[in-house]
Amino acid sequence: MRETSPTRGAGISDQLLEGILRGSRPHLARAISLVEDGAGEAVRLLSHVYKRRRMASVVGVTGSPGVGKSTIVNGLVGEFRSLGRSVGVIAVDPTSPFSGGAILGDRVRLRTHTTDDMVYWRSLATRGHLGGLSRHTGDVIALMDAYGFDEIVVETVGAGQSEVDIMKYAETVVVVLAPNLGDDVQAIKAGILEIGDVFCLNKADLPGAERTRRDIEMMLNLREESGWRPPIVMTQAHTGEGLSELVNAVNSHREYLVSSGLLEQKARQSHLAILNEYLSLLTVEKVLESAQVDGSLERALKDLSSGNSDPLTCASELVKRHLT
Amino acid sequence: MRETSPTRGAGISDQLLEGILRGSRPHLARAISLVEDGAGEAVRLLSHVYKRRRMASVVGVTGSPGVGKSTIVNGLVGEFRSLGRSVGVIAVDPTSPFSGGAILGDRVRLRTHTTDDMVYWRSLATRGHLGGLSRHTGDVIALMDAYGFDEIVVETVGAGQSEVDIMKYAETVVVVLAPNLGDDVQAIKAGILEIGDVFCLNKADLPGAERTRRDIEMMLNLREESGWRPPIVMTQAHTGEGLSELVNAVNSHREYLVSSGLLEQKARQSHLAILNEYLSLLTVEKVLESAQVDGSLERALKDLSSGNSDPLTCASELVKRHLT
Repeated sequence: MRETSPTRGAGISDQLLEGILRGSRPHLARAISLVEDGAGEAVRLLSHVYKRRRMASVVGVTGSPGVGKSTIVNGLVGEFRSLGRSVGVIAVDPTSPFSGGAILGDRVRLRTHTTDDMVYWRSLATRGHLGGLSRHTGDVIALMDAYGFDEIVVETVGAGQSEVDIMKYAETVVVVLAPNLGDDVQAIKAGILEIGDVFCLNKADLPGAERTRRDIEMMLNLREESGWRPPIVMTQAHTGEGLSELVNAVNSHREYLVSSGLLEQKARQSHLAILNEYLSLLTVEKVLESAQVDGSLERALKDLSSGNSDPLTCASELVKRHLT
Repeated sequence: MRETSPTRGAGISDQLLEGILRGSRPHLARAISLVEDGAGEAVRLLSHVYKRRRMASVVGVTGSPGVGKSTIVNGLVGEFRSLGRSVGVIAVDPTSPFSGGAILGDRVRLRTHTTDDMVYWRSLATRGHLGGLSRHTGDVIALMDAYGFDEIVVETVGAGQSEVDIMKYAETVVVVLAPNLGDDVQAIKAGILEIGDVFCLNKADLPGAERTRRDIEMMLNLREESGWRPPIVMTQAHTGEGLSELVNAVNSHREYLVSSGLLEQKARQSHLAILNEYLSLLTVEKVLESAQVDGSLERALKDLSSGNSDPLTCASELVKRHLT
């Protein structure tokens, strides 16, 4: 299946939109790159893409380092494929503040299904942009949705605030845990325990798995009752053990969202997250950019440094000068 | 030493400022709580506090979960104390989006030096606030600085974008690593390797330590030459092994910052970070708040949900309506 490669020039956003809507992989890839680069053409493209969404299911997969998250995502993709569903995967990588790019490109990741036409992997950097935190995740989900994937899986490494934010785009959040990961991890676990709709206790063959399961049960008991009790699925991702149960749990959660009417709330949360990103783009980033150009940013920093002014006063002046 | 407890009422910010400047611990504690709560009184207080900074040294300590970061921070505090320096510690915890509070309060952390008058521990939540990401860290550093601590240590769990952002407030960033933490951790390491001024390879008695040290050396070789070659200090924090070398490395980095003139750049970076937080407060958060009040946020979310509009158009309209 040969595709016309998307080229630069007039009407690039129309061209890309058309390509994406008819399911051309090169057009999708090119569009994602444009969005990542913050290119001007991306803005016009996205304004159309957001009106052409098809309602893919978005699953977020998060968890501490070392729990086998990538293997779980691989397994999930396999299970979705065996159900005949096409899958787009977005892996959000920690960004190098130096290079500005994703540390782990798609190349160095061990991925299966790479020759499957119905699966598409993409790494995204959580850029160290002024005020803009992985803003692109929502846009890339929209692109993959308009392209027509049945399932979109968003995977994040780590458990900082950025991961919590990214999970706002997911209808179902799978938190992957492993037995006995040390004390520090307890904190991480606690931080992400409350965003999980499904818990996946991976490496369930390790000693201490049962104890960790009970710990999770106990923490879940502390959660407010909400009508959905997150199941804990024991997996051994490297053997495939428990993966179909995991997909069943994800599907049950979806059915619950639909039957309870909560799906709408999830969509609202995702729209709010993307709106937030665009508000930041139009305000904070715009102010910083103009203030850099006319030297008022430098003056503000000098005033802060000398103790002549305070951040609130400086920020107010910059907003007044550059936004109103 | 009895202190008058700071009370609510008129002039609370003046009262707190006065208390902080004369070194009253209850006033500092109360002020930090006000800032965390986003109380109105905090704004006025902070505008004065930022003009009364004393230039404490700020050390950031970050690293993946399970590497023994808390033990390292404990050890650092002990070393600083043995040099006669007072220390304020800010532990930035992952936040529960449900409770809005820090998961690990000061109480559940195992801390030494808790009865030492010259050491103060404080946990801060990285709140899941709309658009506001651990905004308070910079403010709390300013409070501790005005109070008069010689050293301020900021400790973060995890290695997401939020941690990278928080590290902008530190003059010296210590990245704590441990041998053989699995593949996922390589990504984290890569993400934080580039922000480290000093590397601390903890649990140096574990097998594989030497190999991990060589791996770090190799990755450091890939960094652009900048005049400072980050040292790798091998520690066994639970025995105290290597801790004084760690403090020496931190001090060497400071001397380098001063002699190279880079200290000013670091201060600039920190001022930019705090300015960024305040810009977000005055724009994104303000828009979202007013838009919630007059119903325009709800209308925007409805338009996004129905595909009648796109995020950029919605965000532009909200900014126009509520900021200009």
